[in-house]
Amino acid sequence: MADLASLTKQEGKVPPGLKSNFDVDFVVHYKIPLPATERAEAEAAFIQLIQALADVGFATEVRNGGKSSLLVFVKIASNKLLTSQVYRYRVQDWLYGVRTAAPNQDLTKYFDDEPVTEAERLRLAYLLITKAKNEGGAGITPRVGQWKYVASVFPLHDHGFNRSWIKQWSTKYYLDDADLNQIRDKFGERVAFYFAFLQSYFAFLLFPAVFGLGAWLVLGQFSWFYAVVNSLWSVVFFEHWKTKEVDLAVQWGVRGVSKIQHPRPQFEFEREAQDPVTGEIVKVYSPFKRLARQLLQVPFALACVVILGGLIVSCFAIEIFITEVYTGPFKQYLTFLPTVLLTIFMPTLSTLLTKLAERLTAIENYETQDAHQASFVQKIFVLNFITSYSPIFLTAFIYVPFGKILVPYLDVFQLTAQKFTTEGKPLPTKDWEMNPDRLTKQVIYFTVTAQIVNFATEVIVPYVKRKVFKAVEDVQTEIAEKKNGEDRGPKDVPDEAEFLSRVRNEAQLDEYDVTVDYREMVIQFGEQLLRHSLLQSRETKQPADKKTGYLSLFSVIWPLTACSFLVNNWIEARSDAMKIAISSQRPIPWRADSIGPWLNALGFLSWLGSITSAALVFLFNRGGGHEAGESHPNGSPWNISGWALLLSIIFAEHLYLVVQIVVRNVVAKLDSPGLQKERAERFAMRKQVLEQTFGDQHVQEESSGPGMTGGEKITREALEEEAREASRSVSGTGSPEQM
Amino acid sequence: MADLASLTKQEGKVPPGLKSNFDVDFVVHYKIPLPATERAEAEAAFIQLIQALADVGFATEVRNGGKSSLLVFVKIASNKLLTSQVYRYRVQDWLYGVRTAAPNQDLTKYFDDEPVTEAERLRLAYLLITKAKNEGGAGITPRVGQWKYVASVFPLHDHGFNRSWIKQWSTKYYLDDADLNQIRDKFGERVAFYFAFLQSYFAFLLFPAVFGLGAWLVLGQFSWFYAVVNSLWSVVFFEHWKTKEVDLAVQWGVRGVSKIQHPRPQFEFEREAQDPVTGEIVKVYSPFKRLARQLLQVPFALACVVILGGLIVSCFAIEIFITEVYTGPFKQYLTFLPTVLLTIFMPTLSTLLTKLAERLTAIENYETQDAHQASFVQKIFVLNFITSYSPIFLTAFIYVPFGKILVPYLDVFQLTAQKFTTEGKPLPTKDWEMNPDRLTKQVIYFTVTAQIVNFATEVIVPYVKRKVFKAVEDVQTEIAEKKNGEDRGPKDVPDEAEFLSRVRNEAQLDEYDVTVDYREMVIQFGEQLLRHSLLQSRETKQPADKKTGYLSLFSVIWPLTACSFLVNNWIEARSDAMKIAISSQRPIPWRADSIGPWLNALGFLSWLGSITSAALVFLFNRGGGHEAGESHPNGSPWNISGWALLLSIIFAEHLYLVVQIVVRNVVAKLDSPGLQKERAERFAMRKQVLEQTFGDQHVQEESSGPGMTGGEKITREALEEEAREASRSVSGTGSPEQM
Repeated sequence: MADLASLTKQEGKVPPGLKSNFDVDFVVHYKIPLPATERAEAEAAFIQLIQALADVGFATEVRNGGKSSLLVFVKIASNKLLTSQVYRYRVQDWLYGVRTAAPNQDLTKYFDDEPVTEAERLRLAYLLITKAKNEGGAGITPRVGQWKYVASVFPLHDHGFNRSWIKQWSTKYYLDDADLNQIRDKFGERVAFYFAFLQSYFAFLLFPAVFGLGAWLVLGQFSWFYAVVNSLWSVVFFEHWKTKEVDLAVQWGVRGVSKIQHPRPQFEFEREAQDPVTGEIVKVYSPFKRLARQLLQVPFALACVVILGGLIVSCFAIEIFITEVYTGPFKQYLTFLPTVLLTIFMPTLSTLLTKLAERLTAIENYETQDAHQASFVQKIFVLNFITSYSPIFLTAFIYVPFGKILVPYLDVFQLTAQKFTTEGKPLPTKDWEMNPDRLTKQVIYFTVTAQIVNFATEVIVPYVKRKVFKAVEDVQTEIAEKKNGEDRGPKDVPDEAEFLSRVRNEAQLDEYDVTVDYREMVIQFGEQLLRHSLLQSRETKQPADKKTGYLSLFSVIWPLTACSFLVNNWIEARSDAMKIAISSQRPIPWRADSIGPWLNALGFLSWLGSITSAALVFLFNRGGGHEAGESHPNGSPWNISGWALLLSIIFAEHLYLVVQIVVRNVVAKLDSPGLQKERAERFAMRKQVLEQTFGDQHVQEESSGPGMTGGEKITREALEEEAREASRSVSGTGSPEQM
Repeated sequence: MADLASLTKQEGKVPPGLKSNFDVDFVVHYKIPLPATERAEAEAAFIQLIQALADVGFATEVRNGGKSSLLVFVKIASNKLLTSQVYRYRVQDWLYGVRTAAPNQDLTKYFDDEPVTEAERLRLAYLLITKAKNEGGAGITPRVGQWKYVASVFPLHDHGFNRSWIKQWSTKYYLDDADLNQIRDKFGERVAFYFAFLQSYFAFLLFPAVFGLGAWLVLGQFSWFYAVVNSLWSVVFFEHWKTKEVDLAVQWGVRGVSKIQHPRPQFEFEREAQDPVTGEIVKVYSPFKRLARQLLQVPFALACVVILGGLIVSCFAIEIFITEVYTGPFKQYLTFLPTVLLTIFMPTLSTLLTKLAERLTAIENYETQDAHQASFVQKIFVLNFITSYSPIFLTAFIYVPFGKILVPYLDVFQLTAQKFTTEGKPLPTKDWEMNPDRLTKQVIYFTVTAQIVNFATEVIVPYVKRKVFKAVEDVQTEIAEKKNGEDRGPKDVPDEAEFLSRVRNEAQLDEYDVTVDYREMVIQFGEQLLRHSLLQSRETKQPADKKTGYLSLFSVIWPLTACSFLVNNWIEARSDAMKIAISSQRPIPWRADSIGPWLNALGFLSWLGSITSAALVFLFNRGGGHEAGESHPNGSPWNISGWALLLSIIFAEHLYLVVQIVVRNVVAKLDSPGLQKERAERFAMRKQVLEQTFGDQHVQEESSGPGMTGGEKITREALEEEAREASRSVSGTGSPEQM
């Protein structure tokens, strides 16, 4: 068996396992199933795998992967193959308009000028492995069809880099362009875009934190003012990001890469047809069938609303009943009931519905990765929108205005509870009064508690889980070994042992999914808008009928939550970095030219924020008919303020749209390094081409300038003479005073 | 003096004046001022003109232009210059991404494949004449600075083509792509886009006309149904046009030409600075100064509202007073008073304000033609919006709901009138009742009368004016000649006489301004939306308190106005063609890739239509509190329906936005010939480049596919053996049942 070190070029010193990857590009994790029938199939497929890899030019080495699996170490065999691939893809980029200029023909000089980054090499290697055979790849698609035993194809972590990366980031306040470029070179533009977005958002949060705190100290309470500033802030952030995104894409040389679509291997075609334009054979799936399946999104959204909404409403009702109506025994324990219910059912239901969303998206059978991803993100957003924001909407639009009317119906709990108590006595309750503490509690819960819980579930839980699983596994293996009285097959070569154990470990990790992280940030952005408008609007209402303490509390909550988000996002960036470095496989360094479908989600939230802000400020500042209904003897909480409320919503929404247009125009006028770079590149390219094409001709042209084709030769003198003549002849005609 | 025929290549037979242009590309109309001091200056400048033209390679001939002016006939001297110019601009197009492929280096073959159209030649010639000297042009900018005596630079009409064009069009119902291509080849894409838009709009009007009539016959009255269909129709039309526009731009090879900006010669720069990117010297004008001047648009818009709105409100009030309150003598004559007032003041004020808009736009000092044009169109749209739609809004939102409250205030007319009558007796009046005839009259006036009046002012009036002026001029000249007892200077050569008289005539014509025609169509589109929603909403209200005759009348008005617009637009296309062919100078064949700023105006109207439809349907279908106020004893017409009205507006607006997104997505999925063409071109280009670049390498690659760089040679057999070995070794490790 070949030595793994043979894959490295510098065969002299082989560094210890953790420090070197032996120049391995990718690892294919191949599972060997236990049943003998499948095993034969898997073995045959494995040979095909090795052959397919060799055919496209990979050098491979096979090692034991532990737990009935193999690890195939894959490396692009020749440097020539790599450069030709890079060149080919760069030409493709140029043809699609991603690059301004065609790659230079002089290859050695060219690769000195624009060296191949690690991300580029890994991406091309991955494409070479997964691309269909007729497109020149090995056609290996993990977990699909023929390759169902290929568990994963992943690049190896660069542990040296990872360590210095985490160390660097944990000691600096602000990530600069160099940091993002580093991420880009290692993990590709898709991941880099996430961190760039996080960083931009972090920077923008400074404004509400600092300005809000300052304004609160100087101006005191000013609720509608905060609401307006908040909304304006969201518009500016959104429009700024849209420009920033383009700017980054240009700087990273990926502007327009979304045009280069990657086919989805899972796509099932109905028939093959010839493209009328290109004459190529294309795979076709009826768009009507897809549309029919897309329509399933409507029942899906309804199901989400009913299931999640139902859960939230029930818990909300139980909570209100127990905390604000119920006065019987065990109250101090029962208050935890809704939280317990939510903690148990919410993640379960969310997971179930996410699985359903995945299933639905798969059924929609998209041809390209991007379309698939966009459709999935859309569903995820609906799901998260409901789970995250319905408590706010419930409090603002149901609990506060209609509390007095609805709370008596909560007696249903009393009646239910009565059935279970043998005495049949009614439970002890008290008369309901609206509880303004509710909002404060909710805010503190969501801004602080939720973020800590989030951090825990995201980083600590997976870490502990992994440790535990690992321990359990080790014990199991040990037991099995003891039972069989055998050793674990051929031992690893000592040189490789440490490295292999590390790779086996990485093979077990999850794939990093940037969608999850985007989702978190986008939802937080929405909270910054929606929850805050709720809070600010509450503020002015409070002092009238409650202790003045609330006033300052509500007023300061805007800058305070901004501060809390600021801290959270600082940690978030580092914990996400750790997630990538430690608890995930190294991501495939895909390219991207934007944050993709999340951009729409941001825009939607920003717009919704403008409407709810207006509604809430109006609702909580006016009349008071919403609070208890006493001021309106007829019992309709809407009576007069209804049209004014709607008018203020319409006004706010259109003001928002106008402001958006204005901000967009202003932001579009600003110059940015990326756009400057693009202009400079285009200018240089134009200049060069024009010089090349017209260098000689132009000179010719000028020398033969006033030359004529006709029979008569017109010289400058002749023309002048003629002009004089003509003007004289006119003078003689038109002007009476000369006569 | 050289013979004009020398400009033609075929010197054999010179066709009579009307049939040939003697191959003249452009005519420069040069005015010689009468005062002697200016005359010297003008003469000096004229010599410079001839010289400048000769310098860049034009052959020129000068002739007497009549009325103290000269005609300079200009022609690109050499075919080589023309082809090099064409080639240069096509390369530029390619560099800007307008063309997919770079022009072929083999020129003779290339120009056989892609011949130079007349429009292209004229455009390049015009650019060569007007472009700044440092950019290789002659730098002749009509009516600006040094060239203030250059009255105009215009191409000559192709009368043969014009005649057959008008004849062809007046005998066909529908303009097809070939017709539009013809326009494009002769008058350039900007004009062609107008006709394409007109044609698309015409085709779309068929639907409301046919469907509406059918629905009216089958379904009877269905007012809200028409309103919904109308709104939906507008969305579909708008989105369709947006795609169609792109499609046409691709087909015509002008997609993205708006990126190639033409500098505005009138632009005044504050200082010169070096572009940080390109290193070129650029002219800079402070954007803050421009912004300050742009802010003048706000008082301008207010002035428009006050002046035009005031006029319309006054006339409206006078009309109501006279027709519906006043019963005294001369009523039959006085009813015409408001119409007379409007007819006198409206065009005067409009012209004044348009001049003001022009002035304002000039003050804003834009660097490019497009920015200037866009800003001007914006102002024009505001102006026309007020003049065209304020009567509708007045009727719908003031007259109908608040009539009962406001009409008594019209007594002010009575009081004013009393002062002028010696007797001091009050004028005879009657009690006011809302007049539902009003809307019918308005509609009939606007859809039929207004269009006829429009046609007359657009085609007949200029024609008559021209004839009259011409006659007056002829008489004047004759008198002057008799008085002076002299003849008109050197007589024209008989060969040229007819031609020259024709050119002198063309020199007097106005420049064709496509903006005016666009404005008309866009305003009509708005009427189709706004006025109709008003009508449909009236319909359901009518039968309750008026004769049933109205019902059917209102119901049928939707299809009927659509029919009337259909007829009007058929005529419009032909009369615009005639306007171009007969009463304007031949337009400079500019390129364009869309209808430009009018697109936004269309979108705005379509959106506004959705809101007003909802408001009107609601207002006229509900309560009736708006009609006279009797049903609400408290006198507030808004009381209860206010919030419902606003809710229906919000609902309709958001429904509109959702429908728009859906329609946009559906339309975007449809394929179109232009996009197919583009795809095919791009595909062919990519294929070609890839073949050229990788033709050899690819073969090499494949042959050296599984080759290795490392020390060890891996053959397929060795790999297979190794794989087998590895899988065997795994089998020995992982699966307990084999033990």
